[in-house]
Amino acid sequence: MELIDGKYIADTIKQEIAETVKQMMAEGKKQPHLAAILVGHDGGSETYVAHKVKACEQCGFKSTLIRYEADVTESELIETIEKLNSDTDIDGFIVQLPLPKHISEQKIIEAIDYRKDVDGFHPINVGRMSIGLPCYLSATPAGIIELLARYNINTKGANCVVLGRSNIVGKPVASLMMQKHNPGDATVTVCHSATKNIKEICSQADIIIAALGSPGFVTEDMVKEGAVIIDVGTTRVPDATRKSGFRLRGDVDFDNVAPKCSFITPVPGGVGPMTIVSLMKNTLLAAQHAIY
Amino acid sequence: MELIDGKYIADTIKQEIAETVKQMMAEGKKQPHLAAILVGHDGGSETYVAHKVKACEQCGFKSTLIRYEADVTESELIETIEKLNSDTDIDGFIVQLPLPKHISEQKIIEAIDYRKDVDGFHPINVGRMSIGLPCYLSATPAGIIELLARYNINTKGANCVVLGRSNIVGKPVASLMMQKHNPGDATVTVCHSATKNIKEICSQADIIIAALGSPGFVTEDMVKEGAVIIDVGTTRVPDATRKSGFRLRGDVDFDNVAPKCSFITPVPGGVGPMTIVSLMKNTLLAAQHAIY
Repeated sequence: MELIDGKYIADTIKQEIAETVKQMMAEGKKQPHLAAILVGHDGGSETYVAHKVKACEQCGFKSTLIRYEADVTESELIETIEKLNSDTDIDGFIVQLPLPKHISEQKIIEAIDYRKDVDGFHPINVGRMSIGLPCYLSATPAGIIELLARYNINTKGANCVVLGRSNIVGKPVASLMMQKHNPGDATVTVCHSATKNIKEICSQADIIIAALGSPGFVTEDMVKEGAVIIDVGTTRVPDATRKSGFRLRGDVDFDNVAPKCSFITPVPGGVGPMTIVSLMKNTLLAAQHAIY
Repeated sequence: MELIDGKYIADTIKQEIAETVKQMMAEGKKQPHLAAILVGHDGGSETYVAHKVKACEQCGFKSTLIRYEADVTESELIETIEKLNSDTDIDGFIVQLPLPKHISEQKIIEAIDYRKDVDGFHPINVGRMSIGLPCYLSATPAGIIELLARYNINTKGANCVVLGRSNIVGKPVASLMMQKHNPGDATVTVCHSATKNIKEICSQADIIIAALGSPGFVTEDMVKEGAVIIDVGTTRVPDATRKSGFRLRGDVDFDNVAPKCSFITPVPGGVGPMTIVSLMKNTLLAAQHAIY
């Protein structure tokens, strides 16, 4: 069993990006600039945005954080988005989700100029990904593909089971894994809450990508000997021994599943760090005008 | 075994549309208007476009056919598309594919205003479909979903195998079949040229949607007793007994597979007629400004 070290790969890629940025700036090009809009004080969102700001520093990017209280109106947010759309110094920006209930996330996503949509959530980027055209890939699916590539995991013709059909992980990662591309070219099955024989399907999988948000869902008896397991789950569970009072748990019963696998991602330190790195890669692509 | 009569369902829907159009015009609204651009003289394309023009008549739509010889330039085509984009009398239009090799199909597709893209091929419509937002669904996948709905076929939790991963059938029908929606909510597996154990996967399927363009590919031994078979294949095979010199063959070995099925679509007369009807439905939606 080999542990997929997402943290190490993420650090390596951030160094690669920092090198590229140094080169760009030595050539007199402008510094890549990512902006983030954060609404309210959700604990998870605060942490993610802080990590993103720190990753910008590591990559040599400029970053701007725009904060709003939870009572900001939809039209105020859209006004800010329009300013960022037309601000030529901003290469890309994100609006950290989730948003308060009185704001339509979809409206916000579609207000972002798709050419600056480094989260890859705008319908144009989603559609281009599905068709197989250059686009900003959404961060978590792109991070998973990058891990498979860096560990030289053979995906061609593999039976790949995706657990979950969310718009930000399950559907796009299924789409990427079925493309005629390496990594990709896998036979993909998408399972979800209505799936009847999920144990049986998983036990035939060469690769399982678990993105249900259900701690410990994938158990030993569901996993074939030698399978590759990618665990996208990051649920906060109470843990009195931690200063924070919680720890992150994945969708996989790691201790019992790991011995059966050829490769497995830990939680934390697997997919998580890759997600932020994908955002950095998209920001670099935006600054280089590599896609649009 | 029940035959899924696509022709009958298609005729029924065309009548429904014609009724709606009559009503709209009685209310003083404008007649829905579909335009089609046909380049060259490909036999299949000529037939499809002729069928589309006829379907417009049956639905009470106005139709306009714009023809170009195969040596038309890309920029001439785009100029025409831009005229159609801004022509307020045209509710929707299509460019019949395939196009001659010197023209980029993707460039042409993206030149069409997504609000008039009644073929549903523009990345915005593809992305919105994937996310589950209102959009113009591409015609063949939408026709398949409509057939499943009209025959009350239970898809929730069903194991649905899609053969083929094309951008116009395989990928979008897989996307629709996995949505939390009825029909839909199925456990979807997408198989393609790199799939290793395709027979085994098919033999576990409750629903098979075959869109490979490989005549007779799905044989009796690949099909479970009671399965539902949707055959999207329409390959022209030589047939000296026909005036045309050819007949259409599906991806399914119909004679031997049909007795094992609960439902099956014939070729021709199954999915084919539904594809054109989906285009008519999108044109009606465009005239009603129901989506954009």
